[in-house]
Amino acid sequence: MSTLAERVVAGDVRGAARLMRLIDDALPEAEVALRELWPRTGRAQIVGITGNPGAGKSTLVDRLIAHLRAQGKTVGVLAVDPTSPFTGGAILGDRIRMQDHALDTGVFIRSLATRGQLGGLSRATSDCARVLDAMGKDVVLIETVGVGQDEVEVCRLAHTTVVVVIPGMGDDIQAIKAGILEVADLFAVNKADREGVDRTIRDLRSMLELNHVVGRDAAHEIAIVKCVASRGEGIEELWSAIDAHYQHLRNGPGLLQRETQRARSELVEVLRERLLKVALERLAKQGAQLDDLALQIAKRQTDPYTVADAAARL
Amino acid sequence: MSTLAERVVAGDVRGAARLMRLIDDALPEAEVALRELWPRTGRAQIVGITGNPGAGKSTLVDRLIAHLRAQGKTVGVLAVDPTSPFTGGAILGDRIRMQDHALDTGVFIRSLATRGQLGGLSRATSDCARVLDAMGKDVVLIETVGVGQDEVEVCRLAHTTVVVVIPGMGDDIQAIKAGILEVADLFAVNKADREGVDRTIRDLRSMLELNHVVGRDAAHEIAIVKCVASRGEGIEELWSAIDAHYQHLRNGPGLLQRETQRARSELVEVLRERLLKVALERLAKQGAQLDDLALQIAKRQTDPYTVADAAARL
Repeated sequence: MSTLAERVVAGDVRGAARLMRLIDDALPEAEVALRELWPRTGRAQIVGITGNPGAGKSTLVDRLIAHLRAQGKTVGVLAVDPTSPFTGGAILGDRIRMQDHALDTGVFIRSLATRGQLGGLSRATSDCARVLDAMGKDVVLIETVGVGQDEVEVCRLAHTTVVVVIPGMGDDIQAIKAGILEVADLFAVNKADREGVDRTIRDLRSMLELNHVVGRDAAHEIAIVKCVASRGEGIEELWSAIDAHYQHLRNGPGLLQRETQRARSELVEVLRERLLKVALERLAKQGAQLDDLALQIAKRQTDPYTVADAAARL
Repeated sequence: MSTLAERVVAGDVRGAARLMRLIDDALPEAEVALRELWPRTGRAQIVGITGNPGAGKSTLVDRLIAHLRAQGKTVGVLAVDPTSPFTGGAILGDRIRMQDHALDTGVFIRSLATRGQLGGLSRATSDCARVLDAMGKDVVLIETVGVGQDEVEVCRLAHTTVVVVIPGMGDDIQAIKAGILEVADLFAVNKADREGVDRTIRDLRSMLELNHVVGRDAAHEIAIVKCVASRGEGIEELWSAIDAHYQHLRNGPGLLQRETQRARSELVEVLRERLLKVALERLAKQGAQLDDLALQIAKRQTDPYTVADAAARL
């Protein structure tokens, strides 16, 4: 095992941070370590927290960290939200509060920037979750804004995906429909001291019924949990619901199914990248550079399909 | 040329809608038509409209359509925003107003749902923009919520990307930083009758200066245009700024550069898909199914990297 992988397995924070930077930059050294770490992964409980900006996801994550730490569990957090205080997007107050956990060696918080590469975000998040897993973190929380497509994809990594909504977002509940419902395992109705909370819960219930939504798991009913994260209310109930779902997965075929689904998409991503690299190297050997081919396509001398056909036959 | 491609070139709305459905479903027939249409593309002026939910993008798009129609230009619209009224996410009032254009044969509006596939969204949007281009639409407007990674990627398709902001979103201007600024060609400050508009413009200016942001195009200063889309104010000025940027691209190397950049990413996407398909077929011939391999990986009998290495050598 390489020194870097050894440091991660030993729980070394700086080693883990270093590997995550290598992952972020998509450097080949990252793969060397990830390959070595693979047998050490698959132990952490992975929880996705998603929802629109302003739903209070970060505060909820903050409270969940405190709750888990009080239970003696170690926690890793990945924030994949450009508007998250972790990633520096939101108000200063939030950011400062989060840094409280920075002094706690049982917590590892990392933000993942949205990058320009296709497939980059969910791949990098998945890899970073593996690092936290291999470090021995009991729970990995992945916070993601539930708007983009890649962000939805990130939720598929989790054992349990929590969709955070707030009262009085009637129209937004409609907006949630697109994509997120497919990955929802439970709903947290945050800011539940606000007016309209009962209506929101009723709307959610009828939406779930009308759409025959069973989430990713037909055998487990989607729970709806009320909380007021800013005051720490309902956090215990929320964690109980998250954990009940995870135990349900563990006690049945669900856990291996989700692990297999995740392994499948990781394999496809690694394979796609590897195949492209090999194909571009073969093209270059024949004197055909990607940029030249793109220019020919832009000039309508050829088209992407014809070039891809030829390249795939090499 | 196939009947479908012929219908698109003839400007047939139902033919174009049919091809877009084939693209959405990633069916092989779509590629046949797209390959045939390729030489007929590259003529439309493509404009991306992006910004946070609530910035009034759809109203702005609505007004731009009316402005362009009054100039006798034909318009295609792709809405890639799960919260857009085009896609049914927002309030009923907006949705009804948009349908006014449905009676105008010079306007073609299509919404693109966020789908679960990686690379699916920007690929499908790009392909659908090609269809509108081949149909002979003078201008293609792509409306996208500027939060997700894939949504940012979509902006790269455009000749000109407009980032819509509103006054009083101080923190959100910080949030914009992540990713969107790299693709911004101009800013529209919508709802400019609201308090704080001057401060917003000042904040934008200093942010651009502080970050040495030159957008995608160092030779063209990023303009900031005020408008009140709901009252139709500033729309003419906004279009003038959009068009000035496009003319700047046309009169220099910029247009071919952007077309080449776009062709490059389209080629890479087509190639990645083709290579994966060929590799999976080869694996299947050897009796190795993707699902079995994923299960072995999930059980830690092997890892994604080892499997990908073997598959890439086949």
